Parts: sequence; structure tokens; C-alpha cells
Amino acid sequence: MSNQKLKAAIVGASGFTGSELARLLLNHSEVTIEIITSESHVGKPFSDLHPQFFNRLDIPLVSADEVGNSNPDVIFLALPHGVSMDFVAKWKDSGAKIIDLSGDFRLSGKEVYEQWYDKKHSYPEGFDAAVYGLPELFAEQIKGANLVANPGCYPTASILSMAPLFAKRLVREKSLIIDAKSGLTGAGVKASATTHFSSVNENFKAYGIAGHRHTIEIEEQLGALAGHQTAVQFTPHLLPVDRGILVTAYAKVTGDMNQEKLTEIYRDFYQDKPFVRLRNQAPGIKDVRGSHFCDVFPVWDERTERVIVISVIDNLLKGAASQAVHNMNLMFGLAESEGLNQVPLKP
Amino acid sequence: MSNQKLKAAIVGASGFTGSELARLLLNHSEVTIEIITSESHVGKPFSDLHPQFFNRLDIPLVSADEVGNSNPDVIFLALPHGVSMDFVAKWKDSGAKIIDLSGDFRLSGKEVYEQWYDKKHSYPEGFDAAVYGLPELFAEQIKGANLVANPGCYPTASILSMAPLFAKRLVREKSLIIDAKSGLTGAGVKASATTHFSSVNENFKAYGIAGHRHTIEIEEQLGALAGHQTAVQFTPHLLPVDRGILVTAYAKVTGDMNQEKLTEIYRDFYQDKPFVRLRNQAPGIKDVRGSHFCDVFPVWDERTERVIVISVIDNLLKGAASQAVHNMNLMFGLAESEGLNQVPLKP
Amino acid sequence: MSNQKLKAAIVGASGFTGSELARLLLNHSEVTIEIITSESHVGKPFSDLHPQFFNRLDIPLVSADEVGNSNPDVIFLALPHGVSMDFVAKWKDSGAKIIDLSGDFRLSGKEVYEQWYDKKHSYPEGFDAAVYGLPELFAEQIKGANLVANPGCYPTASILSMAPLFAKRLVREKSLIIDAKSGLTGAGVKASATTHFSSVNENFKAYGIAGHRHTIEIEEQLGALAGHQTAVQFTPHLLPVDRGILVTAYAKVTGDMNQEKLTEIYRDFYQDKPFVRLRNQAPGIKDVRGSHFCDVFPVWDERTERVIVISVIDNLLKGAASQAVHNMNLMFGLAESEGLNQVPLKP
Amino acid sequence: MSNQKLKAAIVGASGFTGSELARLLLNHSEVTIEIITSESHVGKPFSDLHPQFFNRLDIPLVSADEVGNSNPDVIFLALPHGVSMDFVAKWKDSGAKIIDLSGDFRLSGKEVYEQWYDKKHSYPEGFDAAVYGLPELFAEQIKGANLVANPGCYPTASILSMAPLFAKRLVREKSLIIDAKSGLTGAGVKASATTHFSSVNENFKAYGIAGHRHTIEIEEQLGALAGHQTAVQFTPHLLPVDRGILVTAYAKVTGDMNQEKLTEIYRDFYQDKPFVRLRNQAPGIKDVRGSHFCDVFPVWDERTERVIVISVIDNLLKGAASQAVHNMNLMFGLAESEGLNQVPLKP
Repeated sequence: MSNQKLKAAIVGASGFTGSELARLLLNHSEVTIEIITSESHVGKPFSDLHPQFFNRLDIPLVSADEVGNSNPDVIFLALPHGVSMDFVAKWKDSGAKIIDLSGDFRLSGKEVYEQWYDKKHSYPEGFDAAVYGLPELFAEQIKGANLVANPGCYPTASILSMAPLFAKRLVREKSLIIDAKSGLTGAGVKASATTHFSSVNENFKAYGIAGHRHTIEIEEQLGALAGHQTAVQFTPHLLPVDRGILVTAYAKVTGDMNQEKLTEIYRDFYQDKPFVRLRNQAPGIKDVRGSHFCDVFPVWDERTERVIVISVIDNLLKGAASQAVHNMNLMFGLAESEGLNQVPLKP
Repeated sequence: MSNQKLKAAIVGASGFTGSELARLLLNHSEVTIEIITSESHVGKPFSDLHPQFFNRLDIPLVSADEVGNSNPDVIFLALPHGVSMDFVAKWKDSGAKIIDLSGDFRLSGKEVYEQWYDKKHSYPEGFDAAVYGLPELFAEQIKGANLVANPGCYPTASILSMAPLFAKRLVREKSLIIDAKSGLTGAGVKASATTHFSSVNENFKAYGIAGHRHTIEIEEQLGALAGHQTAVQFTPHLLPVDRGILVTAYAKVTGDMNQEKLTEIYRDFYQDKPFVRLRNQAPGIKDVRGSHFCDVFPVWDERTERVIVISVIDNLLKGAASQAVHNMNLMFGLAESEGLNQVPLKP
Repeated sequence: MSNQKLKAAIVGASGFTGSELARLLLNHSEVTIEIITSESHVGKPFSDLHPQFFNRLDIPLVSADEVGNSNPDVIFLALPHGVSMDFVAKWKDSGAKIIDLSGDFRLSGKEVYEQWYDKKHSYPEGFDAAVYGLPELFAEQIKGANLVANPGCYPTASILSMAPLFAKRLVREKSLIIDAKSGLTGAGVKASATTHFSSVNENFKAYGIAGHRHTIEIEEQLGALAGHQTAVQFTPHLLPVDRGILVTAYAKVTGDMNQEKLTEIYRDFYQDKPFVRLRNQAPGIKDVRGSHFCDVFPVWDERTERVIVISVIDNLLKGAASQAVHNMNLMFGLAESEGLNQVPLKP
Repeated sequence: MSNQKLKAAIVGASGFTGSELARLLLNHSEVTIEIITSESHVGKPFSDLHPQFFNRLDIPLVSADEVGNSNPDVIFLALPHGVSMDFVAKWKDSGAKIIDLSGDFRLSGKEVYEQWYDKKHSYPEGFDAAVYGLPELFAEQIKGANLVANPGCYPTASILSMAPLFAKRLVREKSLIIDAKSGLTGAGVKASATTHFSSVNENFKAYGIAGHRHTIEIEEQLGALAGHQTAVQFTPHLLPVDRGILVTAYAKVTGDMNQEKLTEIYRDFYQDKPFVRLRNQAPGIKDVRGSHFCDVFPVWDERTERVIVISVIDNLLKGAASQAVHNMNLMFGLAESEGLNQVPLKP
């Protein structure tokens, strides 16, 4: 335990990831929240935007211009993609470690980014500096990183569902289908026809069929694990719930397989990973809500000779804010699970 | 239009399909509800069980023993599988046409039934007599039938999502994956840990992975369309909504394909089917809630060379009660859409 | 029954009341929808805005300027308050009967309107011409009206909960408290922080405490029934559901009271009103969803000497669109319940 | 901070309060969970009943007969009323302090209990020993208590909404009306027609009108504050959400009142109470979900001369489990807020 707490800056206060970061850091024993920024709400107490913090975190919001003066040890960028990159460029030599929750540095490079995000990238040098912040795969690299690209929510659940098989090169090429379902907070805080209560409540629909930008993030990471390019069919759907992602992944394998062997592969792969729980029955999203857990359940279907894996996370936590805290813990040599021991809130 | 209204008996009043049948028949111009049965609620007004009918349908519930005396033209069996078969056997020569909403006569025969339903079948002769009541495929056979096996809810949405491709033998063998999601009414009216509000609300999970009994119903029907056996990977999930099924179906095709060709195949197949709507964007379950529609949306993914089809229905209507009324209309030579013109209730 | 169908114009297509009107009129045997207007979506098919109508009502939206050319018999104004008044002024002598679903002509006059709506009224002459369209109280006046002010959703449920007691002058002055709860569609179709799914889902809150503008509408109508001014405490709350209003009304009475007498008063008052159902147990909002019913349940609490009345409606139907159709039926001498016989959709 | 952690027994594992207690105690720095009992699940891991605890709390459930051997410092009874009383009698001299979450010792005595609970009380001596565990009113008494009767969920929200005014004897007799709304977990974990998803979802209804047993608990506590008997009109309703209670309280006051004065009275009363937040806008239940907060918002309506107070809590926490932990902290001289600093989970 250090004598002095880390000073954290949260850049971008109005969204869900900003408020979830604040919630986690407020009860983190090694951190103080030094500053929270919002360009459109300068001067307002943070709790005006997020009344759940009333009497707990009422500090006034400031402009991102103030970040430098606050000398943060760690900067969390809770900003939209396309906006984050400029702040990374600006603060890369500030002495602070940066954890970027946007999609700006998750991919392998400028070209693939511009193709899938349909947007110019203003700081391509960042791709080399950034470490992909999935602790179950890259803990060692994260420990030494100054810039972490926090993974997307869907990619987190998707990659963890299939990593053990890809790492062993057991997945047959082009066979992977990921049918994913997310709670509405994944669509962000912005009011629109899509996020209107009556569009979502008692409804369910697919979107981004055949073209969602998380596809390439999953392909790159699983491909790297297996050592060759891989194609993924990824279809996201919108659930009428606040939080949670459930992934149903289907794959053909090479070589013989059975349930025992499959379970063994997953047990081996995740045995030292405290936040991945290998379940013995199908998990629901509420089993992990409000927590940093990813629950995984692999099934071998003898009849169809296919592997089916269910994985669930809280998209705002393991899919965003608690993953960022996990990365911070690793980057600063803190205990891996500090501030992340919440039992899921159920019901 | 006949001079005399058809007399209908609804056997099994307490479940959701019983009450939905009553709701539809009450506003059907060619039918009167002659009798509704419930062994556990004899003597109670129907509206005691289903208060939405208060002042609209307050007739006392009677025992199924009374069905014979009421001389019905049509008997709807809204009973669990395993119970229905005995009533079919009992009333097969009563002069009434029978529409069975259970799973007892949907499959090809006794052997396959006993394997997938894990239950003895007491009236195997019924399999030959029964017509599979999916009007989009079997309208002609239904017109002549005395016994109709009303399809399962998941099979209805699943078969309609893929029938045009199977009918043309375009689906590559063993490639079909159906990832299905259903509202809670599919689990029935019985109170249990599974149907408790707090188990379902804000939750989402898979169940019956690799072994759900609707798998074989889908396999048999699609296999028959293509003229050869077919294996289907079917995974159902439970949505925190009352009504609706959404199917996301994935398949590899034989031969060349593109979006235009795919749309054309679906348009041709469904052009004279008034209740299947070929959509030009991804439909949600609320687009069909409270209606007899099945909305279908086929997509060709050039990148992965795969067909993805979304289909949605109201599981209690197109997946049960309105499908039964549609079958009745055909069996008695009424206008196909009589009593089925409800616009979906949205929001 | 007339030989020729009535021609209806719906002005304002984008909101929930516009689409619900279309849904009801589409299955109304005496009406054709001649024209639907939307200034911001001219040229688009109606079903583009409301996909549930796909293949059922695809007519192109037109500007309100086209209404005159279409020679409608009846014009439904499904517009915000403040906008409606100008259209009433414009079309008052067009020969069409007008049913205004906004709040522009519900109150007694210009002064009270401008005080509670905080807005200038441009057509004060309309107040005298307008009949308050609550059929249970004003059927005779509605039959002769050319302009009907369709009641607010909260006022409909509130007034019907207490009308029998006010009509008999049995309510003690200033004792009435109405604690009302509404589904989110009452807040309208506009996307905002208030209507964002994550603000509503799993949430519940009061709003407009001590100042909601439906207060004065309730006060005026109940006051008129009793023959003297009355003050009402009205508190609305937002339910995390799409549809439905439940009112819990509390009042002290003058004179002796008991449960039998109370029930009798309500039975007498509503005996010829087919759409008010006097229930014998507490109704839920789902008991009336999708229907034109108002269910009422009066309770006498001997211990506290207070009357408690629960009433429920579907805010989009009895609180808006079906009430408008009911008014149309009366204005044109059609059967009162034509097009309004839907059994509630439950579950 | 003590050297040795307190040993806690949780009696009754299957319900929501049992699992919420476990969740809170697991992250409480001064307590270890020594034993959890369940008669119907002896031998099963606790996480089998509550999968959210998988890998976090997997200890086997034991019979309540084992409690004695485990020498607990504190026993939490998470049992139904009528069952708790026998365990209190059994363990009253065991040396352990007891916190009873049932309704068995909340009232003033045997007679009133038997009248409102319609059940014999087997251990009437307990009423004298028990302290009513509402820390905002009885902190001093709780510190010295060996038996605490943890308040009901509705009474907690109701009493806190009105305590400042009753303590100053400002509420006019018989004027108080409490219109309360609760999430479904208040109805318990038992599967029944009432708790079936389809009965609750998209629904809302009142229940227990004029006779709910929480009425007397509220009357006794507010009456004691004011120094005279008081009658309360209490009407609970069921919200289609998991957690949360919102109370809307209406009262007439004696003497002059205005908004400033009213706010001042509440500020004074709650100034040293860290878990009651005096809000400056209407709070929603999601503002306190997952936390120990009670948010209160008092409004003076000049027009009707009435006070309206909104209060919200999480029924499973401030209305049950966290209140019990708060009581434990007081009984054992721990820091008042230890283990209770969770920021509400929103969205």
C-alpha cells in the first residue's frame, strides 16, 4: 500500500462510463478523484448530472483545459471515439498514464481504423504506443504501458468466450458466429429515437448486421491469439434492460472434442484469472450486474459437432469502467482486485 | 359467408393461449364461443381467471366432459403436451374438427416424439391424420384436414425465416444456426422460480442449449421442404418481455448469392402470403405485437459469404392462437384473414 | 348505418395518438382514412414512421395544407397544445366536424387557459363552441357538437373515479387528493433526457407536484358536476411502462357512508355506460391495456372514514385516441361502440 | 478498529434479504460470515441458491440447529413473520445480539400484533426487549439493545418522510395520507400468480387497500413522535421494477407554513443523519438503488395549503438489509457507516 493516493482525472462526465468510473474510484482505497471535466457543464456539481452522487461527490465540473494543472497520475478518457485521439496526443508526454475508454486506439493501425470507423485518425502514432487493455490476455504488457486502449464492451465478452479455443488454434476457419445481445446503456446517454423508452421497452431487435465496427476488434484479437487471420460473423441486438451483454458464440473445431475436454481447456486458460468465472450452468446477465465478473459457460453439442459458448458481462463495468480500473491497478502495481470486489447486484 | 355461426369449444382456459383464443374469437364474425373448459375452475366465470374479459366474456367454465353435449363445430385444444393426445383420441370421431395447440402431433411419428419429448405417446394413429398447421406451407392440406397440429412458436418463426431457401435447396448442409429469443409468456402461466418477476426482469439467459425439443420440429419441416434430412443448431433465450419471438438465423448457401437475388427469392416465396411481411429494415418484436404478422428480413453478408435472416412474431398469436384461427378459417372455407386484421399494438 | 363511409383526416402523424387513431380507424367499419398529415415527413409512407403499419397503411404523408382538398367529414387534430388552436380557427367553417386531442379547448376560457398553460390563446371564441368530450358525462352535447375538446388522459381517469360522488355533492370541500401514475407514452414521442430508456426503466418518480396543468381541468369538471368550485390536490408520477394510467383518489364525504351504499352510487351512475366497468377487486392497468375501458373500484375505509377509488385506463386510448373515436361515433350518429370492442391485450 | 472480526450468522438463506445481507457483510471490514442456514437446502453451497455469489461465497448451507455451535456475535433473522419469534425466544440468552428482519417485534405489544397480523404471538416478552431499529430516530437505544426489530420497508420510507413534522407536532390529526409504491421484491421470493413476470411486467396495481399491516407500524411510530395517537391512510401499490419504494405523503399542518420554513424543519431534523439526503428536486427510486440512502423532498403547496413529501429508498437495503447492518454497527460500537458507503447503482 502506497503512502500517497493516486490522483485521477476523469475526462468526460456526462456519459454512463464517466459516472461509473467515479462510482468505482470513490470507493477505491488507493485513489482520489482529483478532477472531473465536462465542457458543456462547467461549474455544475457532478451530482447535478448524476443525482445518485448527491452528498457523495458534489465537486464542480471543470473544462478539460484544467487537467494539466491538476497534475493527475492517471487520466481516464470517457469520451466518444474521434474525440479521444486528440486528448491522447495532447497529454501523451504529460507524465500521466492514460486509459482511453473510446475505440480510438483499439485496432492495429490507422488504415483499418479509418475503414471501419469511417473517420480520419489524427494521431496514428498512438496505435504503436497503446496496449490493448484486456487483463486476461495482456496483463504483463499493461503493467508497462503508458497508454491503454480499454476494450469495447462486445469485444470483451466475445473474446473471453473464445480465447481458450483460439489460443490453442482449435477453431475451424470462418466458422465463428457471435450472436450478441446488449442492454441499452451500450447505446449511450444521448437522447434519440433509438434510446426513447417506448422504442426499447418490450422490444428487441438486431442492428448493425454484417457491419458493426466491433467485428474487426474481435477478429484482430482472436486472430492474433491463433496466429492467423480470422473472419467473425458478429450480430448485435438491443435488449430492453439497462445493463448487461450476453454473447452466444458458435464454432466448429478442428480435431476431436468432447464436453470434458472442452471444460478442461477453459479451466486451464482461466485458472489464475480471478474475474472470469467458469460456470456449470448457463449464466444470465443479472448474475454479473454491477460487478467486474465475466461468467463463461462452454457447451459441446455432440449431435451437431459444434461448440457453443455463453458469456456474460456488465457492459458498463467489465465492458468499460471496471476494466479501466483493473488496468489502472496493473499499470500502477496495485493489487489486481483493489476496488473491484463488488458482488453482483441481484435482483 | 354462412348463415349460421360456427360453434367453438376452447378446452383449457387457464393458460395464455386459451385466453388469447377467446379474445380473437370474440371479435370473429363467423364464430360463437360455445363453451370453455377448465377442470380446476369449474363454475367460475371465465373473467375471474382473466379479468381483462370482465363484462365481455363472463360465461362459467365447465368440465371437458361437457364438450360433447355442446356439439361444437371446432374444438381448440389449449392444453399441455401429453394431455392433448387423449382428447384428440376421444373426440376424433365426434364430427368436430380439432385444432391442437400442443406439441402432441407436430412431429412425424411416435418414435421421434418419444425420443424428443421423453414421454409415451398414447395415440400414435393421430400422427397420420394430423396436418402441420403452417398456412404459408400447407394451406391446401389444412383445408381438408379434420385434425390440425398447430405449430410451435419457435418453429413458426424459424421455419418462416428459412423456408424460401430450403424450398430451393440452397442451404448448405449442417450450416444452419438458429439463435432464438422469446418473451416470457412462452414459458407458460405456471408460477415457478423461472417465471418469477425478479428472475426475468433486467435479465437475459439461454436455456435448453443443444437439446430443446423444438429443434426436431424445425429440422423435420425444413428437411421436408428441401427433400433431405437436415441438422439445425437451435438455441433459445429468455427475453424480459411478455410477448414476441425474434429469430436470427445464419446459413451458408450453395451457389452464387447476392442481396438482390436473396430478396427476390423471399419476395417470390411470400408474395401471396398476406401475413408474412418482407421488410426492408431489421424488424423488432414490437412491430408485430398483438398481430398475426411474421416480419422477415434477409441479409446477404458478402464479406463472410453467409445469409442472415431476422424474423419476428408474437409468440402467443402467429406462434399459437391466431395461427389456430387462421387454420380454422382454412378448414371451414372462411376468408383467410377473417378475425386476423389487427394492426400491431405499438408502443 | 350509412351507405357511404365517413372521410377522416388525421392531422399530426408522428406522435402516439396519431398512430393509435390510424390503428382504430383502419378497423372501423364506417370510416376511411382519407389523409394523414405531417409537415416534417411529407411524401414518406405513414408506415415509415410507424413500421407496425407496414403493408396495412402505407399512404404518403401530406402537408396540412392538403386537408381542405380532401373534403373530410371529420378532422382529428393530434397536435401539441398551442398548435391546435390555429387549425381549429382555420377549419371551423370548413363543414368538417373537428375533434381536438390537444389541451387547447378543454378549459372554460381564455384567462384560465393562459394562466395554467402559460401561453397566449389565439382563438378564444373556440372555448364557447367546444364541447368537453367525455361521453360518460356529455353524450348529448357531443352529439350536437361541431368541435369537441377531447379530454386529457389524467383528467379522464380522475374525473371518472370521482364523478358519481361529485354529481351527488357528497365530497367534502378541499378533501380530494388524486395520486396519479402514468406510463411513459404520456410524455410523448419526443426524445429527451426524460424519455431516455435508462431514465425510466427500473425507475419511478413524481413530477409536476403542486402545479400540473391537468389539475385545473379536473377541478373545473368535478366542480361543474357538484355545482360549486372545488380544489384538487393532483400529483402525477411516471411509471416504467408504455401504457396505462392508474389513479388513486382519496376523499372525505359529507353524511353517512358505507361500502354497500358507495357501490350502489357507482352502479347507478355507470349502469348505462358500456365502457366503464365497476370492478369488485382492485384493477391493474394491464386489465384495460389496448382497450377503451375505464375500470373503477371504490372502497370505503370505515377506520379512517375516507373513500378511496382506484381507476385505470389506457392513456393512449380511453385517455386519447379511442375517446376521440367514441366522440366521433356520437357526433355522426353511429353506434356508440363501433370500432371500440377490443378486448384488452393481456399479458 | 477491533482486532477480531465479529462472527455473524444469517438465518434464512433463500430470500432476498438473506442474500443482500450476505452481499453487504462480505465487504464489511469488521465482520465474517460464520454460518448461513436454510432448512430446505442443507448441504448446498450458498451460491447454488444465489449464483451471483459463485466463487465469492460458496459455503455450504446448514440447519439453524448449528447456529449455537458457531458462537455468533450477531444473529440476523431473515425469516418470515410468525417464524422469527420462536428463534428469538430460543436464542435470547445465547450471548449473541439479535437483529430480526421480520415483523414479529416491531409493534408495541401482543394484542395489537395479533389483531393486525391475524396470528398468535408465542413470545410476547420480546416486545419489551426489542428496540425499533430505525437509526435516525433511535440510535441511542439501538446502541444498548440485544434485540433489534428491523423496521418494515414501507414504514422506513413513510416514517422518514414525515418524522420532522410529527416530532414538532405540526401535522393535523387524521390528515395524513401515504400513497406508497414498491418494487416487486417486496412481495418476496416465493413463486405465485402475484409474482409471475406476466402479472407484474407492464402492470401496476394497488393492494391491501385500507388494511395493510404496515399501517399500524407507521401509526405507532409517528404517534409516538407526536405524543398522541394518529391515524394514517396507507395504500401500497406494486411497481414493475425489482427494487425501490417511493412514498408520496400528504398532510395538513397546524399553524402557518411556507416552503422555506418547511425545508428548514427537514434540514434541522436530518442534519446529522448521513444516510438521509434532503433533495432539492423530486427523487426517483433509481437515485438510491443499491444504496443505504433515503432521499427526502418536502413541498409546500400554497394553493391547497398542504404538505407533500416524497421519499425513496431501496426496499431491500434501507428497507431491510443495510438497515440491519447499520443497526449492527451501532450495537457493536463500530463506525456508523462501515460497509454502507455504496454509491447507488444507476442506471
